[in-house]
Amino acid sequence: MGSATAHGPRLGVWIIGARGSVATTVVVGAAAVAAGLAAPVGCVTEQQDFRSAGLTPVGDLVFGGCDITGIPLVKRAEQLVAAGVVPADLPASVQRALDAADGEIRPGVSAVADPQEPQATAIAAQLTDFRERHGLERVVVVNLSSTAPQPAPHPAHADLAALRAALAGPEPVLPPHALYAYAALSAGCGYIDFTPSGAMLLPALDELARSIGVPYTGNDGKTGETLVRSALAPMFAHRALRVRAWSGTNLLGGGDGATLADPSAAASKTASKARSLAELLPDPVEGEVHIDDVPALGDWKTAWDHIAFDGFLGVRMTMQFTWQGCDSALAAPLVLDLVRLLGRAMADGEVGVQPQFAFFFKDPMGSSEHRLVAQYEHLRTWAAQFAGRSGLEG
Amino acid sequence: MGSATAHGPRLGVWIIGARGSVATTVVVGAAAVAAGLAAPVGCVTEQQDFRSAGLTPVGDLVFGGCDITGIPLVKRAEQLVAAGVVPADLPASVQRALDAADGEIRPGVSAVADPQEPQATAIAAQLTDFRERHGLERVVVVNLSSTAPQPAPHPAHADLAALRAALAGPEPVLPPHALYAYAALSAGCGYIDFTPSGAMLLPALDELARSIGVPYTGNDGKTGETLVRSALAPMFAHRALRVRAWSGTNLLGGGDGATLADPSAAASKTASKARSLAELLPDPVEGEVHIDDVPALGDWKTAWDHIAFDGFLGVRMTMQFTWQGCDSALAAPLVLDLVRLLGRAMADGEVGVQPQFAFFFKDPMGSSEHRLVAQYEHLRTWAAQFAGRSGLEG
Amino acid sequence: MGSATAHGPRLGVWIIGARGSVATTVVVGAAAVAAGLAAPVGCVTEQQDFRSAGLTPVGDLVFGGCDITGIPLVKRAEQLVAAGVVPADLPASVQRALDAADGEIRPGVSAVADPQEPQATAIAAQLTDFRERHGLERVVVVNLSSTAPQPAPHPAHADLAALRAALAGPEPVLPPHALYAYAALSAGCGYIDFTPSGAMLLPALDELARSIGVPYTGNDGKTGETLVRSALAPMFAHRALRVRAWSGTNLLGGGDGATLADPSAAASKTASKARSLAELLPDPVEGEVHIDDVPALGDWKTAWDHIAFDGFLGVRMTMQFTWQGCDSALAAPLVLDLVRLLGRAMADGEVGVQPQFAFFFKDPMGSSEHRLVAQYEHLRTWAAQFAGRSGLEG
Amino acid sequence: MGSATAHGPRLGVWIIGARGSVATTVVVGAAAVAAGLAAPVGCVTEQQDFRSAGLTPVGDLVFGGCDITGIPLVKRAEQLVAAGVVPADLPASVQRALDAADGEIRPGVSAVADPQEPQATAIAAQLTDFRERHGLERVVVVNLSSTAPQPAPHPAHADLAALRAALAGPEPVLPPHALYAYAALSAGCGYIDFTPSGAMLLPALDELARSIGVPYTGNDGKTGETLVRSALAPMFAHRALRVRAWSGTNLLGGGDGATLADPSAAASKTASKARSLAELLPDPVEGEVHIDDVPALGDWKTAWDHIAFDGFLGVRMTMQFTWQGCDSALAAPLVLDLVRLLGRAMADGEVGVQPQFAFFFKDPMGSSEHRLVAQYEHLRTWAAQFAGRSGLEG
Repeated sequence: MGSATAHGPRLGVWIIGARGSVATTVVVGAAAVAAGLAAPVGCVTEQQDFRSAGLTPVGDLVFGGCDITGIPLVKRAEQLVAAGVVPADLPASVQRALDAADGEIRPGVSAVADPQEPQATAIAAQLTDFRERHGLERVVVVNLSSTAPQPAPHPAHADLAALRAALAGPEPVLPPHALYAYAALSAGCGYIDFTPSGAMLLPALDELARSIGVPYTGNDGKTGETLVRSALAPMFAHRALRVRAWSGTNLLGGGDGATLADPSAAASKTASKARSLAELLPDPVEGEVHIDDVPALGDWKTAWDHIAFDGFLGVRMTMQFTWQGCDSALAAPLVLDLVRLLGRAMADGEVGVQPQFAFFFKDPMGSSEHRLVAQYEHLRTWAAQFAGRSGLEG
Repeated sequence: MGSATAHGPRLGVWIIGARGSVATTVVVGAAAVAAGLAAPVGCVTEQQDFRSAGLTPVGDLVFGGCDITGIPLVKRAEQLVAAGVVPADLPASVQRALDAADGEIRPGVSAVADPQEPQATAIAAQLTDFRERHGLERVVVVNLSSTAPQPAPHPAHADLAALRAALAGPEPVLPPHALYAYAALSAGCGYIDFTPSGAMLLPALDELARSIGVPYTGNDGKTGETLVRSALAPMFAHRALRVRAWSGTNLLGGGDGATLADPSAAASKTASKARSLAELLPDPVEGEVHIDDVPALGDWKTAWDHIAFDGFLGVRMTMQFTWQGCDSALAAPLVLDLVRLLGRAMADGEVGVQPQFAFFFKDPMGSSEHRLVAQYEHLRTWAAQFAGRSGLEG
Repeated sequence: MGSATAHGPRLGVWIIGARGSVATTVVVGAAAVAAGLAAPVGCVTEQQDFRSAGLTPVGDLVFGGCDITGIPLVKRAEQLVAAGVVPADLPASVQRALDAADGEIRPGVSAVADPQEPQATAIAAQLTDFRERHGLERVVVVNLSSTAPQPAPHPAHADLAALRAALAGPEPVLPPHALYAYAALSAGCGYIDFTPSGAMLLPALDELARSIGVPYTGNDGKTGETLVRSALAPMFAHRALRVRAWSGTNLLGGGDGATLADPSAAASKTASKARSLAELLPDPVEGEVHIDDVPALGDWKTAWDHIAFDGFLGVRMTMQFTWQGCDSALAAPLVLDLVRLLGRAMADGEVGVQPQFAFFFKDPMGSSEHRLVAQYEHLRTWAAQFAGRSGLEG
Repeated sequence: MGSATAHGPRLGVWIIGARGSVATTVVVGAAAVAAGLAAPVGCVTEQQDFRSAGLTPVGDLVFGGCDITGIPLVKRAEQLVAAGVVPADLPASVQRALDAADGEIRPGVSAVADPQEPQATAIAAQLTDFRERHGLERVVVVNLSSTAPQPAPHPAHADLAALRAALAGPEPVLPPHALYAYAALSAGCGYIDFTPSGAMLLPALDELARSIGVPYTGNDGKTGETLVRSALAPMFAHRALRVRAWSGTNLLGGGDGATLADPSAAASKTASKARSLAELLPDPVEGEVHIDDVPALGDWKTAWDHIAFDGFLGVRMTMQFTWQGCDSALAAPLVLDLVRLLGRAMADGEVGVQPQFAFFFKDPMGSSEHRLVAQYEHLRTWAAQFAGRSGLEG
């Protein structure tokens, strides 16, 4: 699909966690959609509202990244076939795209070694090399690695000068995810926190993005329970129905289930879920959120929510929902959307946090709007400004 | 509760079906809220966004209406206590308000007698009398009677002159609900189709409203399954998830269950439910809607919806929800909202269909916006124009 | 897979509707289980309780039958792979078994031609031929064709002599399913009504089975909603909880969904569901059962049941369940169980209706026990009598 | 209500936790049923199967007990009216019965004081006094206090002699619940562990019951999630469907919710739930059980269970259920059943653990049968032996 000549500049997509289920689905799916082998179901930016926004065509995305495992993408794609996430014939049909991406995946930094400055420099060099070898004008780095605990507080997180000084010292200052974000921004790349790393919540990294002049967005892609909550909670709020308790149980297998069975990793996710509900409803609500590792469910996630609310004259009512979705299939098209949108923002010279992308996140940075439809309208309006202007598609 | 001097003009509320469960809950609830005996839970217009809109205070509403049964409101209120809709001590506390409304309820016209013109004149006279005796500037008529079949087509429905000529003739032209709407508009009242009568869909009645210079709104208050659908469906649409089938089953007892067990009465309701879904989703969807009469459930309604949708690469996913609500308690505060809002529109000289009230209806007249949050924003923006202007509250 | 020498006599299984989804799953699954390619999940008779009952091993079943379509079984098996019912690699692995069964499937009689006697004779000849060519001692005929309306009443259904006389006449007396049952019994085969045909409810056919000396069982395999009801309803009954309403909605696609969208075909199924509930609960209950055709669901069936019940002092409570199952995968192992069990009953000289198989049926013939666990105990006890006796397995 | 002359001996019921919600519902309900003010819904022993078992009529039960709070029963009954558990008019109608029971409730022992022997003696004296003043032949003690942690292990729990020696010493040996059980048995009372105290699992207490010659039963009344599991799990087991994961979330308010929010108190309950599932299913299953305190739900409990299972050829299917019940209303009639049944067992000279009452318990002592219907059959058969014999009813 498309040479640079015909289509305008291609866009680099460099994925942290490039061999994971979501990343593999992204690469397989982008190739399938570009080749017309699959409809762009779940791709927000393929809808009519975004046709004139001048986004890079999916076929003009160039994939690379890093991962701590070395399993080839084609092998990972076959595992996803067995899990029912990817249709049986796709991996063979898009093997060339998988091989191309495979060749651009570097070993990831998992443990924290000191000093960190050389590490950051090495990562930035990988990014620069990726950009230059492919003749890309812009590269977007997207974090799709496992959910990580929030970075432990450190005085050097408060401003960029302090951070730079500390990175040169012998002690580790940033957890691996945040070090990648630091390197990405330093290399002039846009940055997306799709998995919740908390990196961009550090003032020093926000300052870095602004000083370098690159945009970023996040935090924590919303694909299931929180997505539904952001659609449903405004109903209770706008109808003045008093929610008394909102309880949730999430059952999931796959790697994500295992990761989130660790309470410290789950904490950032349950915190963003709770924050979202608090923003959406006027009164405090009771209720807990559980995340259970159920290996039998594989990549499928079942969320059950129970909402107890009062109506007129204090009458007690309830609502329940069950969401049964495939996590990788829900996340992957949003990743494609975000890299295209952030690429557009970069092309337009946007810098720092991008609140117009709140639609995609559990814990949207730069925005306190959690209502899904209002978030969509914000996104749509932002995209509409590009209609009639020359875009990235050529 | 406010005298006219302190509060500005009171507003007349004339209810068709004034002894029904919803109407009784409206009268009990308005008195309870006005007296501070109950919080205005479920009252949209009691929220901060509507504080400055100059709406008539709930305590300044004057209730009257008609019904084909003669059971006293206080007796109906006690039945609602037994059904768990109204708290045990309320009917006694608000007995004076119930008695006052009781004295303003006239026998209703149920059968169609010919000729209809004298009937319409008699109803209009009741309304004028109600307005004059209470010194009301404005009266809003709201239809809360049982769901009725759509009016059978008749050539005289096409324009006002033809309708007037036909009404003078010996044949019935309008079903009872529509005759009430005709009389209400003729008497200069605003009109709300909260129960689906289909009356205001007749071009002749729209013409009448415009010629008299009164506003109207409707159609079919959304309180349960359709409310949730209008909150949830945009999630699928905006996320480009392809809904394949959306099936629904409604279990309800009470009078409404018995009425809707009759397929011809249910037809207008299931049609508005289907229309709503078709407007909300880009593609046609499979799935039926059932409405079952389950007397054991009394005034409680349980709706179960099952949504089968495709995600990225065609992966099949599902969502289900169960809504367990009390119909009268859900509807009553919306009736209070609507009469106050339509009263405001009347005071402001609005005429004809009022699309800004789509937020309240399954089948909003004058609007094709079915997304709940977008409907709310439309309503909020409309109300915001009155901030700083002298309102109805004095 | 076993030769007759090592394993004792093989058992013939002649399927009416032999190219349908259930039948195809039966043939694929039997071969897979026999070859050790699949665990016998869902096979009741593979459990410890039935090890000593002397049942024909699954690998010693010989398949044949009839169908009105001619699509090869291997093609049908591939369709089931696409539908997610059969694992991707199985059809190729068991192709020899599929081809063997394919060669034994005869064109089915769908329309009613007169006179019927020669038709019956021809079908019986097919059965005899099948038995003799394979050197089978016993053949069990199992009805897996589409759900059919109950046979229209006819005086000749009352006794065998009248039926025989009427069959020789020019008028059709039996619907096709019942004609097959007549022929099967006449040919000395055991007969199982797994799909509800109502054939064996005709006194004349019961008389035929007894006069020939063959056993039969049915009616309407229970695989989903009714299965769950027969497990749950005794809980309410034995705990003296008063069920007020039990409502059900079934969503299903596939051929079954389309068939049951026809109310006359669905009638026998909803009737057996209602009968089952009436037997399980002491008091009459409100509530309807819906069967919706939802093609998007394919072979998957979702049943939602809502139960409203009273507890101590009249407190109202509710229970809901959702069952999401694959119909063919639920039915197929039961078919294997039933043919093996009926074969055992034949070998043991059992004649007429076999109430000990009630465990498998919505509308068990010869038994008014609908409680699932009590049915299981009946079956287990019956099977236990064969322990220590020489069985069919060699 | 019956004098001793007309009805045979009355039966004493001495409740530990006699002012709790369940106990209050027991006393209110027994009086209402005896007076014909309420149907015996939820009372197992009022069914036909138990008519001839010679059980003490509900009206011949004499209530007493102990509690650490002093709120009068009539006040507690009014709180239960407000909570929707007890009909509005009942407390006044049965006030005499409430007052009578009130007069028989003694202050409870909550803290562990040393030495314990005098405490036990004092409790036993209260029981003897209760029995003698009312001229009762038999008294059953039933534990309805809050769920307690399992007793901490102690060497003196192993046999009665060691226990007696240790009780005379200065150190506490038994937690309060177990001390009550010790005193009850010592006083010749039957004992029921309806709330899980774990007391009767101590070998020394079993030995005591046998040496005194009294029967006991328990453990942990099954009223909700586990009740449903014991009805449903046999369906999967008997149909050879392979359950992969069974997950549960329980939301409840009231005192029970608060108690079980404490993990050490919840541990005995989640342990008995897990044990029950392990006994019901042949293979190990994944899945957790959560118990959340949701004060907004009051005495209502919502349990959601999700079951992932494999069918034939490994096809993955799921089932979910939601149970919405009122805990006190579910438990109270079972308490009435159990005291009447244990009274019958005492009259018949039964000694030690009574496995025939497994039907009522999450963790039935003396029985490994967890299937609800099989438990019912065991109970029914046991009761049937008394038909034709002179009973307790006179």
